[in-house]
Amino acid sequence: MTEIPIGKPILDLNDRLAVENRELLDKNGVFMLDLLASPGAGKTSTILATIAALREQYSIAVIEGDIASDVDAQKIKNHGIPAVQINTGGVCHLESRMVRQALDTLDLENLDLVIVENVGNLVCPTDFYLGEDCKVMILSVPEGHDKPLKYPGVFQAAQAVIINKIDTMPVFDFDERQFRLDVERLNPGALIFPISATDGRGVKTWTQWLCAQIDEKRKNV
Amino acid sequence: MTEIPIGKPILDLNDRLAVENRELLDKNGVFMLDLLASPGAGKTSTILATIAALREQYSIAVIEGDIASDVDAQKIKNHGIPAVQINTGGVCHLESRMVRQALDTLDLENLDLVIVENVGNLVCPTDFYLGEDCKVMILSVPEGHDKPLKYPGVFQAAQAVIINKIDTMPVFDFDERQFRLDVERLNPGALIFPISATDGRGVKTWTQWLCAQIDEKRKNV
Repeated sequence: MTEIPIGKPILDLNDRLAVENRELLDKNGVFMLDLLASPGAGKTSTILATIAALREQYSIAVIEGDIASDVDAQKIKNHGIPAVQINTGGVCHLESRMVRQALDTLDLENLDLVIVENVGNLVCPTDFYLGEDCKVMILSVPEGHDKPLKYPGVFQAAQAVIINKIDTMPVFDFDERQFRLDVERLNPGALIFPISATDGRGVKTWTQWLCAQIDEKRKNV
Repeated sequence: MTEIPIGKPILDLNDRLAVENRELLDKNGVFMLDLLASPGAGKTSTILATIAALREQYSIAVIEGDIASDVDAQKIKNHGIPAVQINTGGVCHLESRMVRQALDTLDLENLDLVIVENVGNLVCPTDFYLGEDCKVMILSVPEGHDKPLKYPGVFQAAQAVIINKIDTMPVFDFDERQFRLDVERLNPGALIFPISATDGRGVKTWTQWLCAQIDEKRKNV
């Protein structure tokens, strides 16, 4: 099979635009979080729980990445938070040029935090730097504790891992101890936040950590 | 941004090799099922339930696609069924050349059914024909009923949709009626099989349909 060496130049272009995104965010003192997860892991409900915890302290906007539809952006807007929908039209991840188009529609001067909900996919978004301050991934209990073995890349790319839907632990055979060991092996020191976005358990610990990151950035602007 | 028109030639090569795979399968009267789903939707447990229902009638082998690890292939082998692990090394989908390498290690003359477990990903595997007789997708209840809106491609590519983990319906807010309407809109006439791979509910109806497909193929060899 003929190998066509196309990966590198495209990534380079993406990275160049990502650096520009980051400069734009830094200039405005805006912290950007890139949230990665499988379809249905609870990205949108985690974002809503995060917004509920932080909206009095910070001005927040959301960029929603989906193959199609605007249901998630509508959910966010229903809570009075600015949301921009990116429809990738089949593309399996967000790229920095798409995020730039979304950033350009936001009032960055008056924002503190932009949360990017990437396309539901544990593989492809891992490789794309968007200019974010950090990537955080969500693994939900029903997906099973063995995912670090099968999708190591995303567990290595994330600065922190949220275990969502912990309220369903009694229903699923999720070995949290094994999960923590496997994450630690792939990404030593990675923080793990068990939460239930629906009943609110653990959300305070997760958002306290996020606050510390945002404040650290604002201190340096 | 410069558009590099690389999608087409790579897909063409994949499709050419897929047609060769199909010819090889047809010659040996082997039915190949390509199973698509998100990480943690229960592909491996659905395969195990399917094997349990069909192993007395058919000779079965499994091709396991994963980014890394061989935990799924080991699970299958533990049940005395031949399993070949493909590690894609970061690639987010199986391609026909990978499947061919796996087929070449199997005793096709003495097989009736090859089940391919694709990489856990609702987006990328959709576009790759592997030579299979049909694609079936699994959506698990915890992922939510809104997935057809967000990932329409996979619901259009699949001849049948399995709803797995129906034993967890009481825990999740899954609107099966809405799900069926949205699938029907994307893929009119697509069959939907609600199952629980763990407690066995619905598995008989699903495997009866699969049997009919396998027998239809064997009739024509």
